[in-house]
Amino acid sequence: MIINGYEFNHPTRVYSEIRSQIHHTPVFGSKLFNQEIGAELYFKCENFQKTGSFKIRGASYAVRKALEKGNIGTVATHSSGNFGQALAYAASMYGISCHIVVPENAPKTKVEAMIGYGADIEFCQPGTNNREQTLKNYLRQNPESVFIHPYNEIHVIEGHTTLVSELFLDKIFPDYIIVPVGGGGLISGISVAAAHYFPACTIIGAEPEGANDAYLSLQKGEIVHLNEVHTVADGLRTSLGNITFSVIRKMVNQIVTVSEEEILTAQREIMNRMKIVIEPSSATVWAAAKKISAELKGNKIVLVLSGGNTNLF
Amino acid sequence: MIINGYEFNHPTRVYSEIRSQIHHTPVFGSKLFNQEIGAELYFKCENFQKTGSFKIRGASYAVRKALEKGNIGTVATHSSGNFGQALAYAASMYGISCHIVVPENAPKTKVEAMIGYGADIEFCQPGTNNREQTLKNYLRQNPESVFIHPYNEIHVIEGHTTLVSELFLDKIFPDYIIVPVGGGGLISGISVAAAHYFPACTIIGAEPEGANDAYLSLQKGEIVHLNEVHTVADGLRTSLGNITFSVIRKMVNQIVTVSEEEILTAQREIMNRMKIVIEPSSATVWAAAKKISAELKGNKIVLVLSGGNTNLF
Repeated sequence: MIINGYEFNHPTRVYSEIRSQIHHTPVFGSKLFNQEIGAELYFKCENFQKTGSFKIRGASYAVRKALEKGNIGTVATHSSGNFGQALAYAASMYGISCHIVVPENAPKTKVEAMIGYGADIEFCQPGTNNREQTLKNYLRQNPESVFIHPYNEIHVIEGHTTLVSELFLDKIFPDYIIVPVGGGGLISGISVAAAHYFPACTIIGAEPEGANDAYLSLQKGEIVHLNEVHTVADGLRTSLGNITFSVIRKMVNQIVTVSEEEILTAQREIMNRMKIVIEPSSATVWAAAKKISAELKGNKIVLVLSGGNTNLF
Repeated sequence: MIINGYEFNHPTRVYSEIRSQIHHTPVFGSKLFNQEIGAELYFKCENFQKTGSFKIRGASYAVRKALEKGNIGTVATHSSGNFGQALAYAASMYGISCHIVVPENAPKTKVEAMIGYGADIEFCQPGTNNREQTLKNYLRQNPESVFIHPYNEIHVIEGHTTLVSELFLDKIFPDYIIVPVGGGGLISGISVAAAHYFPACTIIGAEPEGANDAYLSLQKGEIVHLNEVHTVADGLRTSLGNITFSVIRKMVNQIVTVSEEEILTAQREIMNRMKIVIEPSSATVWAAAKKISAELKGNKIVLVLSGGNTNLF
């Protein structure tokens, strides 16, 4: 499939290549939530995915593709959270080393997890520029290493398509899929895969009001970078990239923005009712569903719970 | 099976009678926890059971048996928590009404859940005597109603045996089962069922140090009532009954007591690693497993996560 010049592998092909590297995550439901919305809801539980988030899908496929191109010494990225863990884990599965540039203020538990998966950590000052510059220096000094971008990267997006392959295998045929939007890698992968498996499916993005760059970017028709973001959903603070913007612009029907209070209420409701641990980013999809319940009524809805890496107490 | 004069139905028979009323709960694992203990661990997730705890198994079977004896108007009990919710839900499934005496200081969310399931609530002063006296008054004024004890009751214990039937159906054949001990209903049911399905299996109780009445009762050879209990594990503050004591004394191999700090650490570890919400009572089994890891090494261990009804935030 080619979208605005970017070519994506068929999701079934991608799935067949990495399915042994990822968990086929379960789908949970709640009769009470179904009643509240008047729809049939399927919560896709990526909190149960390896390393606690969907990121391993893309990381795993990107490492595989990098290895196919030839001998590489190291994969490298900059990350303060879930992608760093996923890349470290993926690298360890393929037996190669991994270098991650981490801002000094990154959560200690996430840094420990990266180290636990065998990554080399290089700390830098916080801020996108510092992260990119530090990584650039590393890549220059280590020409055998390959940079893998957390989301604005074809193979990472292709890896995320496998989530939809699993829905098909579970015989869940959604009318709507609601997905959190941060850098846009997940929703891009899901859009590409849905176009293959469920061409009539409507794709909806859920985004915090305090980090609504995707919403604004679609309105304006070009990528908008926010000067400041304010949201508890730490996975959704990043801006779109040129590839993810291209895909989202063409394939995503609507971005629904939700307030901080709506996010925290949704997180509490899911944890109390479904007894699963999710991070705030994941809660945006349930908050968004409640907001557009009139539209969803009577339909089959998949809500993607993107991860469960949060410090509860 | 007859234990000290108490006769219990065959667990497969019980299972066939109520399996449509209960969830067949999943079993979760963690490679990291397996490595830590050097054993194969299976966490039985009763937090995903209807009403958020295992209690629906016993409540459901007890209501069924009460109905078989003739027309009854109402089932009644006293409860501040999980059993009240379960009995209210079971009564609603069988289309009869339910009366629950609730201490005034019971958690608001649990009272709301009971009301949500259609129960009539009668508040009383806190304390076992007040609860029992208030219920006695109700039963005298409502002779068509049937009292169902939360744990010291044959049919309730029989209902809990179905948890082990599900292990068998999942082809999990444990060497050890570790179970939280409060009033002793759950561990009694599991002991009875294990004697049928897995006669060589060792049954271990997990109990908070601050509510160690089962530990002391087994030492002394008679039921010990504590004057004060201090534990965050609110499901485990009750004393054994004469029936549960009889069963435990004969069938349970060991009670392992764990400190408050060990309980909270175990709860945090399970929630962070497995991404599931459990109440502190459930965490005692993982705390106990770590304490006796030398004994467990190389074996298949089932750890019963009894429920997930806890207020996180």
